Amino acid sequence: MNNRERVSIIVFSGDLDKCLAAFIIGTGAAASGMQVDMFFTFWGLSVLRKRGIKVKGKSLTEKMFGMMLPKGADSLALSKMNMLGLGTKMMKEVMKKKRIASLSELLEIAQQFGVNLYACEMSMKVMGLKREELIDGIKGIVGVATYLENAAKSQITLFI
Amino acid sequence: MNNRERVSIIVFSGDLDKCLAAFIIGTGAAASGMQVDMFFTFWGLSVLRKRGIKVKGKSLTEKMFGMMLPKGADSLALSKMNMLGLGTKMMKEVMKKKRIASLSELLEIAQQFGVNLYACEMSMKVMGLKREELIDGIKGIVGVATYLENAAKSQITLFI
Amino acid sequence: MNNRERVSIIVFSGDLDKCLAAFIIGTGAAASGMQVDMFFTFWGLSVLRKRGIKVKGKSLTEKMFGMMLPKGADSLALSKMNMLGLGTKMMKEVMKKKRIASLSELLEIAQQFGVNLYACEMSMKVMGLKREELIDGIKGIVGVATYLENAAKSQITLFI
Repeated sequence: MNNRERVSIIVFSGDLDKCLAAFIIGTGAAASGMQVDMFFTFWGLSVLRKRGIKVKGKSLTEKMFGMMLPKGADSLALSKMNMLGLGTKMMKEVMKKKRIASLSELLEIAQQFGVNLYACEMSMKVMGLKREELIDGIKGIVGVATYLENAAKSQITLFI
Repeated sequence: MNNRERVSIIVFSGDLDKCLAAFIIGTGAAASGMQVDMFFTFWGLSVLRKRGIKVKGKSLTEKMFGMMLPKGADSLALSKMNMLGLGTKMMKEVMKKKRIASLSELLEIAQQFGVNLYACEMSMKVMGLKREELIDGIKGIVGVATYLENAAKSQITLFI
Repeated sequence: MNNRERVSIIVFSGDLDKCLAAFIIGTGAAASGMQVDMFFTFWGLSVLRKRGIKVKGKSLTEKMFGMMLPKGADSLALSKMNMLGLGTKMMKEVMKKKRIASLSELLEIAQQFGVNLYACEMSMKVMGLKREELIDGIKGIVGVATYLENAAKSQITLFI
């Protein structure tokens, strides 16, 4: 087990293109037998958000963060050429036509392949996100110590 | 050969400043005897584009991607302070005056020093880019499996 | 000493959120006994700037770079949702209220924990930044060779 090659990815970005890259690497590595840990922090947390969840008792700032962060893998936009959503829509259609998995499909594949998904505790605290607002199947809400422990054993470490 | 130190860089960004950083690291590592693999994906592919190539039979979307992606190393812009091109121009002039290699010079140096340049197969498919639209001397158009195989043997792995 | 685990972080970005992430990882690693090297390059150099320093004899371009680069850790803005400074202000207030260290506090902690801070020689040259414009306690103004030497011995290598 110790000899299994490992990949550790911090997903900081909430941009569609960067998150696609993260998941293509993550699922590709898992498919070839590597152990994969993905740590979602800051804007990256938006990938793990569930749709249509409302949590009571949030402060005004927390409500604002909640409104502004994309709600889940289907809501992300491109980092460039978004063009008020047109570029993002175009990219999604091209990917569909060329039979390339969408971000939400990649997220599902990642979970099926046993990729460990972690949410960053401190970012959740800053943004006022609660556990029940995230999708099921997350391995843990963890701090930087857990990230470091895993990453130090990984051949491939990326910040995306 | 197995003991030679290795660097693996994913060039995701198509921003001039980030690509400069990638090539300064890549050529610096190659110059000091390390094996360097650079994988160009998404916007990063623009660095590898040849100028003045027209390919027939592209779909409308592919033509749009072609028009919007910078055409080669000389066409990239800064990620910040671009100011409608003024910042980029200023940066290029400063670099020239201070005798720092430009991006296209660094690309040439990288090739002379034996840096392995790879283009991402899936990104090319999404954007409708053809082999003949890329510069000569690319080691391969490859998928994530090739990236992972190389990166897992690299001491330094970066996503830029 | 050789067996001590190491982290090597390139801080390319001058965005508040990305620099926070870099320092949370860096100070977290140092706190758990790892050796940490942080290389500040391009926009990342703004974190190391001292406030209120004026250097004479700069060219017009160098003065412009000086004016446009944020002056130190307290002056950085968010990469997203900055909203003319409102988003950044909101984020800082939330962090304060939730007792999370600010960027300048993290910078201080990093120095107390013995994190090695390096400034990129070439970027300083391009931007016309002088040694006396940077904070005290920097380990060195170095080139890519020093970065590579340290990074090649690090288990965790990140480009932020």
